[in-house]
Formats: sequence, structure tokens, C-alpha cells
Amino acid sequence: MDAKTLHVDAGGGYDIVIEPGVLDRAGELVKATLPRAKKIFVLTDSNVGPVYGPRFVASLETRGFMVRTHVIPAGETSKCAASLVEIWSAMAAFGMTRTDGVAALGGGVVGDLAGLAASTILRGVDLVQAPTTLLSQVDSSVGGKTAIDLPEGKNLVGTFYQPRLVLMDPEVLSTLPTDVFMSGMAEVVKYGCIWDREFFDFLAARPTREALMAYITHILYTCCDIKRKVVNEDEHDTGLRMILNFGHTLGHAYELAGDYVKWSHGQAVAAGMVTAANLGVELGVTAPDVPGKIKGVLASLGLPTEISCGFEHIEKAVGVDKKSSGDFVTLILIEDIGKVKPLKIQKSDALELLSRMLGR
Amino acid sequence: MDAKTLHVDAGGGYDIVIEPGVLDRAGELVKATLPRAKKIFVLTDSNVGPVYGPRFVASLETRGFMVRTHVIPAGETSKCAASLVEIWSAMAAFGMTRTDGVAALGGGVVGDLAGLAASTILRGVDLVQAPTTLLSQVDSSVGGKTAIDLPEGKNLVGTFYQPRLVLMDPEVLSTLPTDVFMSGMAEVVKYGCIWDREFFDFLAARPTREALMAYITHILYTCCDIKRKVVNEDEHDTGLRMILNFGHTLGHAYELAGDYVKWSHGQAVAAGMVTAANLGVELGVTAPDVPGKIKGVLASLGLPTEISCGFEHIEKAVGVDKKSSGDFVTLILIEDIGKVKPLKIQKSDALELLSRMLGR
Repeated sequence: MDAKTLHVDAGGGYDIVIEPGVLDRAGELVKATLPRAKKIFVLTDSNVGPVYGPRFVASLETRGFMVRTHVIPAGETSKCAASLVEIWSAMAAFGMTRTDGVAALGGGVVGDLAGLAASTILRGVDLVQAPTTLLSQVDSSVGGKTAIDLPEGKNLVGTFYQPRLVLMDPEVLSTLPTDVFMSGMAEVVKYGCIWDREFFDFLAARPTREALMAYITHILYTCCDIKRKVVNEDEHDTGLRMILNFGHTLGHAYELAGDYVKWSHGQAVAAGMVTAANLGVELGVTAPDVPGKIKGVLASLGLPTEISCGFEHIEKAVGVDKKSSGDFVTLILIEDIGKVKPLKIQKSDALELLSRMLGR
Repeated sequence: MDAKTLHVDAGGGYDIVIEPGVLDRAGELVKATLPRAKKIFVLTDSNVGPVYGPRFVASLETRGFMVRTHVIPAGETSKCAASLVEIWSAMAAFGMTRTDGVAALGGGVVGDLAGLAASTILRGVDLVQAPTTLLSQVDSSVGGKTAIDLPEGKNLVGTFYQPRLVLMDPEVLSTLPTDVFMSGMAEVVKYGCIWDREFFDFLAARPTREALMAYITHILYTCCDIKRKVVNEDEHDTGLRMILNFGHTLGHAYELAGDYVKWSHGQAVAAGMVTAANLGVELGVTAPDVPGKIKGVLASLGLPTEISCGFEHIEKAVGVDKKSSGDFVTLILIEDIGKVKPLKIQKSDALELLSRMLGR
């Protein structure tokens, strides 16, 4: 595993440091990035905290930071308003000032929650992301989206808030359960689908975890580099950025159908990409061999390529989707592997076609 | 009463329409500003809603907007996390999309809450402010600060979020209780103190509500114009904008001492300005005749010029104040009427001096 650093221009600009063992250099790198900070509020969860928390906190304390660690229960159910309110109170009780910082050590739930809390406590303090899952490394730690879920839907509340630093340690991926690792691979494959055919083929030739981990720095760098290019052009998600949602509208329907428990985000997105590819073929946008290629890669990684789902969940996902405005919805389709093609159509037309495709 | 419009450059730029009866033109003006919006979520409170809600909503509905009105109990205690979470759920249940809008009809509590909710639901939807108190018209509706209070302190959570339109109807001030009107006058006097001696003298010559109301459009315009100039230069409150906090650090201590019930924000700020002026004299920054002049104007408006307060509240306000960073606090002092002078000093020095001044 080699090390690479990527600079992102969004927000005030920040570095993504991809480096084995970088968690042990957290203190040094945070000190260099936030020279005025005295206190660091660390948010982590009950899975990651016990394993990586002590090293991370020790590294910060060695550099003189006063650290308060707040641990949330692992899992998506923590990504809620009640957790956020508790975190706000813990931050206030810690006596943070506007020059102090927040660090997120964990997966997407921790990163999304910490980001929202950091963007709103004292109207915004500095944020460091230390993502510990493949999904959060390639997706939710880059791009500045923060969020919580509401009972009415996923990610309905949030902000755009760029971190000051992202610490990405590929070594921590070795302790991920296989299904969690592969769930992250769904988003990795997505980057190939929408942007980079060569990368897609590179992944298709490495269908095992071992083969992928041998090139993990390259994989992380490539995904973040694609996301960086997209986000740089569209920091506030008003246009280009929606291409990152390939597979996600239907993925949300599948997550909803499984009550966010049966299917992980990555599994739902995997099946969502296949459905989106099939939808694209139906609409004459997508080359006919594309769904098969995507299915092949996903299946070799042990990811689902089809999820059955009540049509009411699809209607709901299309109706309340953030990408929809009024009567229209923008479907993220691909013409071919590596070539994305957003298509704005009437919600009613999209639903009718989906209903027909799914044989209902 | 005449009408005036002021353009603010902050955010995407927006107009403040100061016009008698403008609430009845809400539909027309909102339609022109947010042409893509279909739904407007109106936040108001139990005092304002029954009086002005029907006119405001009718005006919006006449222009074809679908309107959902959410009423919070009047008073500062509604400016809390629990209200925010309820509002988020009501917005989600209303089925808003990212092109819909939020309108705040009420005083500072309604404006701060609506602003925070609008900035975070779906990661931000358009916001219209229709402030109905003198305080919110001259202060909290301009500048893009949103907030809720935590049990640990006031305004500890919030965002910077600019409205798309501000509708300011001077006629609604006629239904304000006198103490609420005069509480707003404390902030009006503040603008004279920090920025505009002529305006201060203008106010000093009009010590009654009737005399002030005869020139209310001029007064509203002048205050918003000063705030606009300051905010334009410092949208994210990292420098110049702190001058708007003249009287506010001590004001917060007084509010805290009265549990946010005994003294209104304006009353606390009034006494805070006098203490800040006295502090400035002690530090050799403020001309010796300044405290007397400020006291004279405030007293003629029926505002308190001195509030007794346990020293622990002052320590707390100085310690957790958003303007403090690390061991230092920036005191907002004035050299003379109309001439502000921020002074960064050690927290311990500030507290020692305050302790001596207050005879403890």
C-alpha cells in the first residue's frame, strides 16, 4: 500500500491524505491544519470507537489537544434528530469555541452526523473526517454533504459543509466484515459506470477482496478524484453532482422496502444501478449490453443485482427524492460504461415505465 | 409612512421591501422572487398567527401557492431543538421539494427557527422573512443568522443563511405592546452608537413612540442600511460583524441572570450597552460623556440602564461567548457616539475589570 494526497478546492480547500496508518498521525496533521484549535470533539460509534478510538485520541492528545469523545450506537438508526440534539449538548458542555474542531472517526453515519453537528454548533466549527469504511472513504467523506434521516425519509435534513482535512487510512478496511466491504464496492463500481470505463474494467478484472486490497490506494484515489472533479464544479448540488446518484433513486426505494435493515446502502445501490441500466435500455438511452456488464461485476463481488420491492416504495422514492422538482424527476442514466446521461422526465412517465418493467 | 426598498448583496442578493401593508402583497412578491416554488411552508407563532396569518396566507394562496401553516407557541422557549425537529417533520410531511419555499411570519424567534429549518431541510430551500416586531425588523431578519438555543446557552446552534426576500410591514408595529416596541428600540439606538452619530441625535430628539412611528420607514431603512453595510463586508461573522454585538456580551449575561424571562433581549442589550460604555471609559477607550448620553436616550424610552446580575453569569457569558476564542475575548467598545472600537483582551483581564467595576 502506498500513500497519496489529493487536494480538493471546494470550501476553503482541503487535503485528503490516503495513507496506511495515518490515524496515528492524526495529531500532527490536525495541528498543522487547525493551528488555533485547542479542543477536538471526536464523534465515533460503538463499533469503531473501541477498535480505533484509543490510537486516534492518543495521537491528538500527544499534540496537546483536549479531546472529548462522544460514542453513538453503531448503525443507521443513530443518524437521527435525537442523536444530533445530544451531540449539540455534549459539544456545548465541552465548552468549545469557534476556533475548536470536530473530528469524525467512523463510517457514513458518523461522518454525516458529525458534519451536520459541526456545521451548526456555534454556526460552524472546523471539521476533520476520518472515514473508516470503504463506503464513507469513497463517498460520504468527500463532497461536503451532511445529513440526518427523518421518520419521513433518509437524508431529509442536512447542510453542505466542507471538511478542513480528510484522513483516510486504508489499513482500517482490513477489519471490515466482508459484506460491509463489498457494500462499499458498489459505490466504487458506480464511479466506473458514470465516469471511467478503464477503471470499470480494472475492477472487473479483480473480483476478490484480496485482489482489490492490493490496489486499494489507487482505488480510493481514483474514486475521490472523480468525486472531486464533480463536486468542484457543483458544490451545492444544483446540476452535475446529481450524476453521483446513479442507482440511488431506486436504491432508496429498495432501502425503504427493507426498512433500512434488510439491505445495506451499497447493496441497494447495486441493484439500483442494474434497474437504472435496464430503464435506460427501455428508454433507448443505454446500450443494450450495459446491464449485463454491470450485473457481471456486481455479482462477482457478491452484491445483489435485483431486489424485489413494493411499488409504493418506488413511488415514494421518486416523489420525495431531493432530485425531483415539481412534476419532473431527473433520472441518472448511462449511455455506456463510463458515460453518464441525466434525463429529465415527467414523474408519471417514469413511474409508468417502471411499473411496466417490474411487471405490475 | 412611505415605502422604501433596500438591496442586500449577501448570499444570492435580495430585497428588503419596507412598505405599509406589504403583507397583503406577499403572494405577488414571493411569486416574482421564487417563480419555481409551488408550496410555501409558513412558520408563525401563537401571537402573530391569529392576527396577521390569514391575510398573509390568503395573499399567497391567491397567487396559486399551496400553503401549510405551522404555529409555534409565542416566546423564546420555542426557540429550541424540540421545535426544530417538529418543524422538520412538518416540512417533510408537507412534501416540499428543493424548489419550494419557507416563509417566516413573526418576530426573532420565528425568524431564527424558520431560517435554521429552511437552511437544513433538503439541505436548504428558499427563505422569505416577514418580520413583525421592531427588533426582528432591524436586527434578526437581516444578516442571515439563524439559531436555536440549547439548555447550555442562547443561539449556540445555527447557520448562516440569507433570505431571498424580506417583507417589512411597518403597520404591524402598531399592534406591538409598548415594552416590546421599546425593546426593539434598544437595537435601533445601538446602530446610532456604533455607526451614526446623526441618527443617534435624531432618535434622542424623538423620545416617544408616536414621534418615532412618524419616521418609522426612515428608522427601519437606516438600521437595515447600516447592518447591510456591515454584513456585506463580513457575511460569515469573522471580523467586522462583531461590532453589531455592542452591548450583547453583557446583555447575554443579563438575559441569563433573568432566565431569559425577567428581561427581554432589548432590555438586556440596553443595560449591556451602558455597561460596555462604562467599561470603555475604564479602559481609556471611550469618551467620558458617552455613558451619560446613552443612558439618557435609553431612559427616555423606558429602557433599563442597569441590571444587577450574579458575577457567575458574566463569567459564563464571557467564557462561552461565540466572539471569544481561546483565552481572549473581543470587547465591542465605542470611542464616541457613532464610532465603534473593538478591543481584544485577555478574558481574565476583562473579568477582573468587570468584577472591580461591579464592586465585587
